[in-house]
Amino acid sequence: MAQAFKGKPVADAIRAEVTEKAEAWKAKGHTPKMAVLLVEGDPASYHYAQAKGKAAEKLGIDYELHTFPTEVTEDELLRNIQQLNDDPAVHGIMLELPLPKHIDTKKATSAIAQYKDVDGLHPHNLLATVAGTPGLYPATPQACIGLLKHYGHSLAGKNVVLVGRGETVGLPLIHLLLRENATVTVCHSRTPDIGAHLRKADIAFVAVGRKNLVTPEMVHKDLLIIDAGINETEDGGITGDVAPDVMDHVAGMSPTPGGVGSVTTALLFANLMQAMLLQNLSTKEVNLNGNV
Amino acid sequence: MAQAFKGKPVADAIRAEVTEKAEAWKAKGHTPKMAVLLVEGDPASYHYAQAKGKAAEKLGIDYELHTFPTEVTEDELLRNIQQLNDDPAVHGIMLELPLPKHIDTKKATSAIAQYKDVDGLHPHNLLATVAGTPGLYPATPQACIGLLKHYGHSLAGKNVVLVGRGETVGLPLIHLLLRENATVTVCHSRTPDIGAHLRKADIAFVAVGRKNLVTPEMVHKDLLIIDAGINETEDGGITGDVAPDVMDHVAGMSPTPGGVGSVTTALLFANLMQAMLLQNLSTKEVNLNGNV
Repeated sequence: MAQAFKGKPVADAIRAEVTEKAEAWKAKGHTPKMAVLLVEGDPASYHYAQAKGKAAEKLGIDYELHTFPTEVTEDELLRNIQQLNDDPAVHGIMLELPLPKHIDTKKATSAIAQYKDVDGLHPHNLLATVAGTPGLYPATPQACIGLLKHYGHSLAGKNVVLVGRGETVGLPLIHLLLRENATVTVCHSRTPDIGAHLRKADIAFVAVGRKNLVTPEMVHKDLLIIDAGINETEDGGITGDVAPDVMDHVAGMSPTPGGVGSVTTALLFANLMQAMLLQNLSTKEVNLNGNV
Repeated sequence: MAQAFKGKPVADAIRAEVTEKAEAWKAKGHTPKMAVLLVEGDPASYHYAQAKGKAAEKLGIDYELHTFPTEVTEDELLRNIQQLNDDPAVHGIMLELPLPKHIDTKKATSAIAQYKDVDGLHPHNLLATVAGTPGLYPATPQACIGLLKHYGHSLAGKNVVLVGRGETVGLPLIHLLLRENATVTVCHSRTPDIGAHLRKADIAFVAVGRKNLVTPEMVHKDLLIIDAGINETEDGGITGDVAPDVMDHVAGMSPTPGGVGSVTTALLFANLMQAMLLQNLSTKEVNLNGNV
């Protein structure tokens, strides 16, 4: 039986650290505050926004939920983002996705001030992730690596296969893995035989968004797998990209639910702490519109 | 004997296209102009700057060489870059590297207006390369792919090993290769056995900057190699990262000199044509300071 890379202990450790940092900020007169913008229409988004509110409360972090009707105009949404950018009491801004089709998602996410963008969706934060410079890195790729390392596995010199090249998880993960000194093979929909690569890998990260993408005959008994996929099941639950029975054929694997996702949520608040550092609250020298 | 991926026919084809586009711009009243900034002190840089001047002349492109003494201050250099940014008659700006130690290279290259940065060194152009959005992509990674394709080889679905993860060649190349739908394995100084990866690859790109990094026992007879390395030899010539005798043990390989380098120079002028398009010369709507 494989080692299960459960997210909870990792998330607990991150939350303990966030709580401590939040207390330190409060002592300096800055109560950390996260603002979430939710455009109605997607039931899952509503659920996620609520969950973040509860998580914030437990961490002693202020939380504001701004809800908009489905028919809100792009201009109106952008105006609200700008207000939050300009509000010095708000330190982190998240925009729940997906947005209705009449709103340009790229435009909306790029409108969030670079140093309040705790989701790491702003182009400047993608660039920081790629180049390894200070910024807010997206939470899921960070969660993937943090989860593996928490269980005592290192990446340096290892043969790592990454399945998926999407802009939010796969692409940033390439660069985080290279900075861990892993030898990284990026597989994707146009790779003829993903199993051939997985069977030679030490560690696999899977971030595609398709259930049962990885099956038992594609793996080997010494493989470690981190599954970042989140897919809905027919009974309304969630499952990863890796078929659950792969667990019986590898040395270690993150479960879904209970794996990467729970670490990701905790890391959003770790990013809020990082955002407060980058905002340089004591001196106010940072241009919060992100034009640095 | 392997197929030699010689750069000259590829460069000739690119130059023919550039000449045609340059003529078209002139007919519209915009004579393409490249400005090169050279801080004295590095003999190779002087040689490269002269070579670009000759190449420009042959293409019917105006060329300005701005030479500065080694002791020029950073401020003075930045002021000159700004003047060229602001000059509507200058369409491309190149800064010869390396710079003397008292000048911050990152600061200087980032000061070049995004849409005049024909070397693709500005952070916004790196981001464009990563994200696949319009911009000026660095010439050497483009040359690597153009060279291979010119000789009839495609990348889609192939197992490609990239040796090197540097910011100017390796890193952008990862993303260009992924967009060609190659399965990409990135090896580097911390990869324990690069040969083990090369022996399983269809195609290899090598961009490290160390001569004899790849030797005959690391390859196989069906491998295709593009060598982007440029290293000085003891007799004052140049050689690639791949030992020249590897040519006898593979199916195809780019020679050095006479391979990637000659294509790169031609592509700098192709980038100048792209720069003129991005500058939107007819309407002047683009903010040339790059804050788009």
